[in-house]
Amino acid sequence: MRRALHQLCRIPPSSLQQRVCGVATIAASPRGKFSVIEDNDLSAFEKILGKNNVLTEDLDPYNTDFLHIYKGSSKCVLFPTSSEEVSAILRHCYSRNLAVVPQSGNTGLVGGSVPVYDEVVLSLKKLNKNFQFDPHTGSVECDAGLILEEASNRLAPEGYTMPWDTGSKGSCLLGGNVATGVGGARMLRYGSLHNHITGLKVVLADEKGSVVNFGSKMRKDNTNLHIHHLFIGSEGQLGVVTGISMCAVPKPSCVQVAMLGVGTYSGCRDVLQLARLYLGEILSAFEFIDGASMRCLDENKKLRSVLTSNPPFNVLVETMGSNEAHDKEKMDSFLKEALNRGLAVDGVQAANAQEAAYMWKLRNILPIAAMPDGFLCEHDIALPLEYFYEIAEILRERLGSMATRVISFGHMAEGDNHINISAKKYSNEFMAKIYPFLCEWTVEHGGSISAEHGIGQERRTYAKIGKGYEVDLARQLKKQFDPKCILSPYKMIEAL
Amino acid sequence: MRRALHQLCRIPPSSLQQRVCGVATIAASPRGKFSVIEDNDLSAFEKILGKNNVLTEDLDPYNTDFLHIYKGSSKCVLFPTSSEEVSAILRHCYSRNLAVVPQSGNTGLVGGSVPVYDEVVLSLKKLNKNFQFDPHTGSVECDAGLILEEASNRLAPEGYTMPWDTGSKGSCLLGGNVATGVGGARMLRYGSLHNHITGLKVVLADEKGSVVNFGSKMRKDNTNLHIHHLFIGSEGQLGVVTGISMCAVPKPSCVQVAMLGVGTYSGCRDVLQLARLYLGEILSAFEFIDGASMRCLDENKKLRSVLTSNPPFNVLVETMGSNEAHDKEKMDSFLKEALNRGLAVDGVQAANAQEAAYMWKLRNILPIAAMPDGFLCEHDIALPLEYFYEIAEILRERLGSMATRVISFGHMAEGDNHINISAKKYSNEFMAKIYPFLCEWTVEHGGSISAEHGIGQERRTYAKIGKGYEVDLARQLKKQFDPKCILSPYKMIEAL
Repeated sequence: MRRALHQLCRIPPSSLQQRVCGVATIAASPRGKFSVIEDNDLSAFEKILGKNNVLTEDLDPYNTDFLHIYKGSSKCVLFPTSSEEVSAILRHCYSRNLAVVPQSGNTGLVGGSVPVYDEVVLSLKKLNKNFQFDPHTGSVECDAGLILEEASNRLAPEGYTMPWDTGSKGSCLLGGNVATGVGGARMLRYGSLHNHITGLKVVLADEKGSVVNFGSKMRKDNTNLHIHHLFIGSEGQLGVVTGISMCAVPKPSCVQVAMLGVGTYSGCRDVLQLARLYLGEILSAFEFIDGASMRCLDENKKLRSVLTSNPPFNVLVETMGSNEAHDKEKMDSFLKEALNRGLAVDGVQAANAQEAAYMWKLRNILPIAAMPDGFLCEHDIALPLEYFYEIAEILRERLGSMATRVISFGHMAEGDNHINISAKKYSNEFMAKIYPFLCEWTVEHGGSISAEHGIGQERRTYAKIGKGYEVDLARQLKKQFDPKCILSPYKMIEAL
Repeated sequence: MRRALHQLCRIPPSSLQQRVCGVATIAASPRGKFSVIEDNDLSAFEKILGKNNVLTEDLDPYNTDFLHIYKGSSKCVLFPTSSEEVSAILRHCYSRNLAVVPQSGNTGLVGGSVPVYDEVVLSLKKLNKNFQFDPHTGSVECDAGLILEEASNRLAPEGYTMPWDTGSKGSCLLGGNVATGVGGARMLRYGSLHNHITGLKVVLADEKGSVVNFGSKMRKDNTNLHIHHLFIGSEGQLGVVTGISMCAVPKPSCVQVAMLGVGTYSGCRDVLQLARLYLGEILSAFEFIDGASMRCLDENKKLRSVLTSNPPFNVLVETMGSNEAHDKEKMDSFLKEALNRGLAVDGVQAANAQEAAYMWKLRNILPIAAMPDGFLCEHDIALPLEYFYEIAEILRERLGSMATRVISFGHMAEGDNHINISAKKYSNEFMAKIYPFLCEWTVEHGGSISAEHGIGQERRTYAKIGKGYEVDLARQLKKQFDPKCILSPYKMIEAL
């Protein structure tokens, strides 16, 4: 499901220095000492790309992020169609000291893919010609500007599919998936992006605009440092990913979904352990939805749970496998055992694709379900399972009546917890109760303050909590790959 | 199966400059301008570690590699028991400009873990106290000096296992697995090491001996560059891995093995495609063994194939799953279909663990099967499947009667081909026919000259073929992490 283009909260129109967003009040860095774009630059870009691929009007869709929280003021969007063109652009920007923000589908949730000031927008949308597939190994070599869903569609007739999936699959690009280290819904089944990507073509923002092939199309290649992994999750800080070598996976022939009601959080952990045991290799999703989340769906979205008993906790369990009879038998055994052991107090199995889609709808609409309350403070944290739910209870007590509700849902198998807190309206007092407390508590308990969404603009204030020398090393790495630090300034790495 | 401690070919005892080994005649780099160890250094090490953990006698097992091809002349082996002790050692070595070679189980096959000259050996064998496991998520946090098999044994009672496996599991250490980017037998089922490792504790050879925690124990963590992946497969060039955060996998309850005879190489590719379709998520190994390999087993090892029809090609297919009845049904369907389609000309399914073990014995003894011919030239290359077998046929024609035999076997699903060439004895003429031809051909056809064994000392002569700026970038990365380049000199990265 594509998330609605909805405003979480508005940006004060006159101010780029002070942003109020889903995470916190963020003071943006002052503009770096980059050059300002001139007519000569535009001429140079037109010479490289042709007039049609240099946009200087109607730039709002490129200056504004997906959630309409962040807005930059770039004067120029470029549409290269090859790595060589990206190289020529970055050579020019390096020589002129022009800041650049690479942009893929612009579906990110932390303001990473839009300019903060007047950075040149380097869009990958037209870099999408090349697509090669080997049906014997599942290996894919393609341009980074391909839309995720299009890649899946090209693989389907061959019996293969992409090993990751996101709500924005209809518009996000593979290069952006790599740059943000996308997590998504299939990670439990197929593993992380680091498992799938075997090589990357990257253009660096150095003097030569170096085009570098890291890794290869081979699944096993130990002939150099595995440098391409450094670009996965790098948020455009180190270079522009223009080509991808990866492994696709055989398309599952059977998908099943069930929703279980559970009496306690500890029971949810036991159900997860049971699911791993009984569903084994076909377990593809284990989504946690607390009672408050389900009530929020009911009250704000008029969406009724599929479970009539109104249990304190709900888990959505999905399988993806290659043999329908086997998969059904495994699911039946799992459900019976969960009920017999008294772990599940209620349970419904989707009888068809429509019912399965409704269960996923309940889960997928949750990120925006509390918006009608007024002000919404969203989080994407990861926590070890022993602390996974404790934070929701702590926040409820801490915020008391200041919060309309605290809802908790997420990819529980990976400890990924979307803690969303709503209030009637924004207030400094409310935010001060949440920050930095929530981030510090998460890090103190061994968690991550950004599980899958990344840092971008939104989370940079708290990204360093609990970190030491690895932050300095990241800065050094940036300077090695991007010597003038012209790529994506004011975001994940503070290199200026 | 542990590979036999066997000499592929002897080192001329008087020469460290000229080595004859499995790959080629390699001219070692001259000794770098490092300091020579003095009594004061030994005193400093004893102060850090205690006398019992500083070894200065009987150093042969640490100076000599597993295959007895490479021999260094270190005067000192250190056994730290904590990251802090590793830090103090590296601080000292940095200040004194002493070269260091980190050593784990010393089971590598390319001479990467032994000194070339008099480098201090930093053994991880005693860094093995910490082991924590979360049965709800499968996450493990442990010291890098743990033996792989011991880690598996600790996980077994919890219903989990390690997601990778190697022939040397009884002695290799997890830190070495990470540093060499181990491939091994379970990659097809569980993915690469990059999928399992979520964080690493690393000690750097800088002024402070910095102890850095990269990544975390969370499966999803997008709060910084994913720097820990840079150490996977880094062969000790960047830092010393002392701690590992990773995900274990549920232990499969059913393992099946079958051997099929196939008439053509193209048929083997079709069988692989069929296996992916019919065995889906439980396919755990697809091993290729050509007819020449099987004849070699018969002639040199008196090991008979399980297939009586003497087919031109053989494939060993293994499954690992969670439900015996389902797994058997899947295997039956696959075997029937392979026979019905005429892809398999012969086939045997292991009826019990003993028969399965015999089939694996045939496969696992192949690396040493051609040794009795006299001189053996071993390779571990990866190739796209359309070229996977062509190279064996080309080499047979190219070498003619100079070669006793050219055998080809390996992890076909990942394109990993062990091309082993034997002759009555070593000769420069024979080697000149193989090198650089084989490496150049492999790279020209999109392959890798070292699929899983790494570069170490053995493959450095040809590691740069077909590579460009990524080699320079690797050198720059080394200098960033290891400013005086004291770690593992004369090997993968030529930084001196």
